[in-house]
Amino acid sequence: MDERLKKQLDFILEIDKEKNILRQTHLSGHGRRENDSEHAWHMAIMAYLLRDYSNEPVDIAKVMLMCLIHDIVEIDAGDTYAYDAEGLKTQKAREDAAKERIFSLLPEDQKEELIALFDEFEDFSTAESKFAHAMDNLQPLLLNNSNGGGDWREHGVSAEQVYGRQRKTTLGSEKLYEVTDHIIREHVEKGNLKK
Amino acid sequence: MDERLKKQLDFILEIDKEKNILRQTHLSGHGRRENDSEHAWHMAIMAYLLRDYSNEPVDIAKVMLMCLIHDIVEIDAGDTYAYDAEGLKTQKAREDAAKERIFSLLPEDQKEELIALFDEFEDFSTAESKFAHAMDNLQPLLLNNSNGGGDWREHGVSAEQVYGRQRKTTLGSEKLYEVTDHIIREHVEKGNLKK
Repeated sequence: MDERLKKQLDFILEIDKEKNILRQTHLSGHGRRENDSEHAWHMAIMAYLLRDYSNEPVDIAKVMLMCLIHDIVEIDAGDTYAYDAEGLKTQKAREDAAKERIFSLLPEDQKEELIALFDEFEDFSTAESKFAHAMDNLQPLLLNNSNGGGDWREHGVSAEQVYGRQRKTTLGSEKLYEVTDHIIREHVEKGNLKK
Repeated sequence: MDERLKKQLDFILEIDKEKNILRQTHLSGHGRRENDSEHAWHMAIMAYLLRDYSNEPVDIAKVMLMCLIHDIVEIDAGDTYAYDAEGLKTQKAREDAAKERIFSLLPEDQKEELIALFDEFEDFSTAESKFAHAMDNLQPLLLNNSNGGGDWREHGVSAEQVYGRQRKTTLGSEKLYEVTDHIIREHVEKGNLKK
């Protein structure tokens, strides 16, 4: 087998490990905890179906690929819960080291391409990255909403914390932020989110 | 919330159930059984990285979306193991009913679009569907290979059965079929596949 294909297959086998990285979100129907690959799959389909709600026109293939790969670094770095202040302090350093190790399994050109795409997602500046982040926020919100806000109650999360993260959805989609805001208000009213 | 967005969000929540549909394949590292959404996520990334090995040029965004949605019908129809002769007889009827129910949650235009994409995958006639099928075959083969062929041994599968399915990978990618053939031969030699 030639070297290029061997490297690609090594990377493909390595990322299988993303299926073992658990998130704090639970599946609908009060299910088990979700893993990163399931979350990424869900986000990519959502991005395609909801693309017309993006504030700006997007290259949807790019958004989908961004969604699919954005958590690969967590194979080494682990999932950092959105409201874990301590974990968030070291997140960037952990993810940078992971990014270098994992994407280096690929042929050089594909390594550079996927790192550029990952960095673009993290930078939150292009239309594609803003819309992908909107998916990253909305996907667990929908699951948690379907489960009566159980993930928030379990962690004693406040409305302020949730707004701190979810408000950025407006940058990707004002329309989808209306849904977000509506859901958060409902859970504050019901006492699932601390005021 | 307007009716279109409500329907889209209903569909998005419904497909969360795909994460509970277990396949016969086990994750690398002798892990647990894989589910459909993990398999689809893996296939979509593989398709992107390996697209240059497609026999014919492909619209890669279309291939990726096809990979992501091709197993949604299994939410109702269940996973039919590739070498389950009895299950395969009723698979089409079960999947047709599921297709109608699940995609009908979407707005009419998106329902039609995704059903057309699903049917295109099933028809195995376009360049995109052939390459997506190559991914559908190669992805579990790589995992099973990494686990010493355990999935085949568990089910007493023969080389003939594996070739019956995997040979179709040539239609999507002759280059990737070389890898497939090499892997199958190794497992026949090692006695993991019956001759």
